[in-house]
Amino acid sequence: MMKQISAARAFGGTQFVFAHASQVCACDMTFALYLPPLPAGAKAPVVWYLSGLTCTHQNVMDKGEYRRMAAELGLAIVCPDTSPRGDDVPDETDNWQFGKGAGFYLDATQAPFARNYNMASYVRDELPALLAASDLPLDMTRQSIFGHSMGGHGAITLALKNPERFRSVSAFAPIAQPSTANWSRPALEKYLGADERAWRGYDSTLLIADSHSIRELLVDQGTADPFLDNGLRPWLLADACKAAGVHLTLNMREGYDHSYFFISTFMDDHLRWHAARLR
Amino acid sequence: MMKQISAARAFGGTQFVFAHASQVCACDMTFALYLPPLPAGAKAPVVWYLSGLTCTHQNVMDKGEYRRMAAELGLAIVCPDTSPRGDDVPDETDNWQFGKGAGFYLDATQAPFARNYNMASYVRDELPALLAASDLPLDMTRQSIFGHSMGGHGAITLALKNPERFRSVSAFAPIAQPSTANWSRPALEKYLGADERAWRGYDSTLLIADSHSIRELLVDQGTADPFLDNGLRPWLLADACKAAGVHLTLNMREGYDHSYFFISTFMDDHLRWHAARLR
Repeated sequence: MMKQISAARAFGGTQFVFAHASQVCACDMTFALYLPPLPAGAKAPVVWYLSGLTCTHQNVMDKGEYRRMAAELGLAIVCPDTSPRGDDVPDETDNWQFGKGAGFYLDATQAPFARNYNMASYVRDELPALLAASDLPLDMTRQSIFGHSMGGHGAITLALKNPERFRSVSAFAPIAQPSTANWSRPALEKYLGADERAWRGYDSTLLIADSHSIRELLVDQGTADPFLDNGLRPWLLADACKAAGVHLTLNMREGYDHSYFFISTFMDDHLRWHAARLR
Repeated sequence: MMKQISAARAFGGTQFVFAHASQVCACDMTFALYLPPLPAGAKAPVVWYLSGLTCTHQNVMDKGEYRRMAAELGLAIVCPDTSPRGDDVPDETDNWQFGKGAGFYLDATQAPFARNYNMASYVRDELPALLAASDLPLDMTRQSIFGHSMGGHGAITLALKNPERFRSVSAFAPIAQPSTANWSRPALEKYLGADERAWRGYDSTLLIADSHSIRELLVDQGTADPFLDNGLRPWLLADACKAAGVHLTLNMREGYDHSYFFISTFMDDHLRWHAARLR
């Protein structure tokens, strides 16, 4: 099922890259998996990291600096791609906010995108089933999820809709309300159609008001992030959490931008947050 | 003199990229500089990291994972490019072991390379003078140097020839004896000419025998490094150090390869080694 693309020893564990034929995305998909050093017979809890616009599995693998702390805490880190891939997948090559690299962790309903753009089902169902069926020492009964930007939106929405699956959720600079942000509205319309009621299931702030399925949320956000005011707007998340009684830890980080220089700085904090809730 | 290309906050400090017109390389050059958080009025000691074949300043900036520990230890990290750059610089575009990305930290003597390929002078003289003349809070009286592969060779040779400049030196998987390694002999001949006596000044093992200018050396080397037997050969370094009375700490790291997964794993150890000697 899974084909090993590469394996490299790192911090006493192994950084893998695997590829496999995806049914729900109707294409070959690639993902990164870090396996920490483990005692014989032990299995690692699984933390999912969802990346942002334009990324593949590789950006966080190269620049996220998660391995040292994941090794120390005994966490496996799974980093999926951000969209279906391949020449047969419809795309807008001049638009970095839609199509390949911009799957928005939803299941598209509109032609011609519905055939491939099913990243919600991919992350929720297909990839975990593939991992569970593998011989990797992963404890699939203990999972958490986090992500960056579009992937922060993905992590929060998946956690809200699958509280039995994820013990904790956090985000770096998430898109708080994609249904109203200028940079995501066109994508949601193309993937899900013009009826905005269909978008509600993929909007963190609206889902929080609806679901009451999580108790707490950790978010780090840089104050020098160029997307802060128009794309990200964490205050909308703060309002939604307050109204729904969700305890939000929102750390506004002075002078930090939207890059992996920001993410890597606070990676340890997020991994510790998840590890404490996976014990 | 220096033009700031980018600056991003990271681990409480700032990751800069600068460009400038280089006299000794007769082209524009780019380098990365990490400045740790510092008390008001303080200056950071400077640790030079020299990269390997095919790299620019960016590979270690993205994948080296040096910022967390550099911030903790208060070290500035300077990462130069590995060769002159630009359309006017002679190159062999199909050869990754020569030309652009493969400057070997030497001063070429042969046409047409001698005009641009002067990375020894660049790292030894020009770039430190540029930094010293800047308003960056750098303590140029305290410097150390390390590097990877071709950059490990560069670090060791520069340290051996400039003991007054570098308080400590270390390397990840250095090319121990470039004058005899198959993958570097053709480059040395093209840069320095057929007379091998001219190569001696750029060969770590031969310089150690000649100079007696350093007392100790830290080297980490992965046992699964595909270049170990033909390109790197740390046992030649061990022999040279033993004969010259240099205390070599050679850590053979089981299962590690030649990549930044290896380098990042042992980055903390090397930064601590240098910090202890820069105090």
